[in-house]
Amino acid sequence: MEEKTGTGIVTLNFDETIPGVVYIDQTLLPGEYLECIASDIETLCRAIRRLEIRGAPALGIAGGYGMALGALLSKHTEYAAFKDEMDEIRLILRATRPTAVNLFYGIDRVHGLISTLCEEPVHIIKAAMLAAANAIAEEDVLTCHAIGEHGLTLFPSEHHTTVLTHCNAGALACKEWGTALGVIRSAALAGRSVSVYSCETRPLLQGARLTTWELLHDNIDVILITDSMAAFLMQQQKIDLVVVGADRITSDAVFNKIGTYTHAITAQYHHIPFYIAAPLSTFDEQARAADIIIEERSPSEVLCIGGKDGVAIAPPDVSVYNPAFDATPHSLISGIITEHGIVVLPRDIPKITAWRG
Amino acid sequence: MEEKTGTGIVTLNFDETIPGVVYIDQTLLPGEYLECIASDIETLCRAIRRLEIRGAPALGIAGGYGMALGALLSKHTEYAAFKDEMDEIRLILRATRPTAVNLFYGIDRVHGLISTLCEEPVHIIKAAMLAAANAIAEEDVLTCHAIGEHGLTLFPSEHHTTVLTHCNAGALACKEWGTALGVIRSAALAGRSVSVYSCETRPLLQGARLTTWELLHDNIDVILITDSMAAFLMQQQKIDLVVVGADRITSDAVFNKIGTYTHAITAQYHHIPFYIAAPLSTFDEQARAADIIIEERSPSEVLCIGGKDGVAIAPPDVSVYNPAFDATPHSLISGIITEHGIVVLPRDIPKITAWRG
Repeated sequence: MEEKTGTGIVTLNFDETIPGVVYIDQTLLPGEYLECIASDIETLCRAIRRLEIRGAPALGIAGGYGMALGALLSKHTEYAAFKDEMDEIRLILRATRPTAVNLFYGIDRVHGLISTLCEEPVHIIKAAMLAAANAIAEEDVLTCHAIGEHGLTLFPSEHHTTVLTHCNAGALACKEWGTALGVIRSAALAGRSVSVYSCETRPLLQGARLTTWELLHDNIDVILITDSMAAFLMQQQKIDLVVVGADRITSDAVFNKIGTYTHAITAQYHHIPFYIAAPLSTFDEQARAADIIIEERSPSEVLCIGGKDGVAIAPPDVSVYNPAFDATPHSLISGIITEHGIVVLPRDIPKITAWRG
Repeated sequence: MEEKTGTGIVTLNFDETIPGVVYIDQTLLPGEYLECIASDIETLCRAIRRLEIRGAPALGIAGGYGMALGALLSKHTEYAAFKDEMDEIRLILRATRPTAVNLFYGIDRVHGLISTLCEEPVHIIKAAMLAAANAIAEEDVLTCHAIGEHGLTLFPSEHHTTVLTHCNAGALACKEWGTALGVIRSAALAGRSVSVYSCETRPLLQGARLTTWELLHDNIDVILITDSMAAFLMQQQKIDLVVVGADRITSDAVFNKIGTYTHAITAQYHHIPFYIAAPLSTFDEQARAADIIIEERSPSEVLCIGGKDGVAIAPPDVSVYNPAFDATPHSLISGIITEHGIVVLPRDIPKITAWRG
């Protein structure tokens, strides 16, 4: 039996003594569980680009940790030189992935202290940056549990609920607990009867590899399907609720892993509630969908399973289109489960803005 | 330049001299092009079950060839014993796969001659069965070209058309030319400007492996996507038309490869025409969807890419649901392209019945 307040999975951590970011390499799961250490910015950036660390909230934490790591590694004791170096690291970290806003939030929250504390000696600024990075991680845990508490109200206590989810918005996408899977965990913890269909989530199979692994770890019933089977299950009335995560929420759309939009359309067609679970740090409610860059990734992710040296599944010379995310309009979304409560956009944008303070 | 009346791909053939069914092993494509020979019923049945031969029209041809092979191999010269053996082979062949009606059509058309010709000596019946099996194959070629001619009317001559297709309803699903891909081939041959997005079609990747291979072979522009990307392309107005094949068409639904139903819902959501290309042998218009058995296949197809010895993509102990087909209601379908013309069901059921004679 796992401890009631956690899953036992800790996705990433900051170790001050190294210093470095300790993380589970998610490209190796479920075959291998390996904790790695990124003790320089270049290694951390590569881990983010290669999706060894992935998931919007986890990217926010990694961004904060990255700035803290850069600060601790800095040899500069003079403010101007220190700030110049940190400005550069900020840009390097921001360039790793374009879509998830949490990454930028984490980086900028820690980086922002440099200007705020410009009157302080550099060693004080460094300590404050480390504290802020750790605070982001600690807040993420509390946030996920709060999202879970709000989300479990969607699960009736009197009968079983079967949830469909896509990709991995779980402990592995956060510090621990998770957003979409956090809702499911909180519901299970509160005694609700719940089971999960996990969409495999091509091309990188985060659902097949990570979500199933997490739910098996927590003894929550899970059945794996291909992404193309979800609508058929909905037609058979086997899905009561869809809950997924998000990478960025603009005033007009939710950006999440490619395939989310499809599930949202088919859920509406079958009158099945479709919820997003995401912390406020995912909201970018002043932006519009058209402003957001959707990351296009390498054709090799589609052409080969298990990386470039994996199994080829298509002629090597065929053209490929590989967008990593899609944009689901708010009209298809029943609600967004945040740490403050469930909201509907664009109606509740003022509420979100007020909560952000 | 390919010959104008064919693709150069011949998916299966009957060789009387062996005797045996000569076929391309489609489980090995695109990595390896291998022609195999099934010279006994057991080998042929295994080839069908393992999807070495697949695609509804090709299964019809294989069913007919199977009955002819059984007849030619039979040692019986006395009618009653011959018929008993053929009845048994009929049941064995019919048990290979449950969903595609063409398989049963091919088997029963050839088997039916045994009763029709009960007054004739067995060697005459055998010759008639072989002729009928070959006729099914020859008719399939003509049928595909006729489907293509009717289908190309959906492609305007004045501008480019981008087609989305799912699975493989191509030469490899027929004797040659194809149904959905036959429409695309006929449009290209008639000088229409056309390009294709091919959905990879998890779990068995017939789109990634076979459709891309066929279209590259014919120099038709093709871009490979995962199944989950189709709706996003529709949202971006990158898809003008969806054309797919079918495994069985009842009075209320079209059965086709799992994922078809999803594309039909998302196409309707985006007001994109959604067509089925299928010969009359695919129609089972007296049946209803609820009567049809949808084949559930092995979890290993979802859990491992490239067969049981391939790459594992999920924890080996996770539960899997793996239906091979789904049922799309006619309300989502713009029309069905047959060899006699384009029909809309249930409105045109009397027309279909009349054409069947």
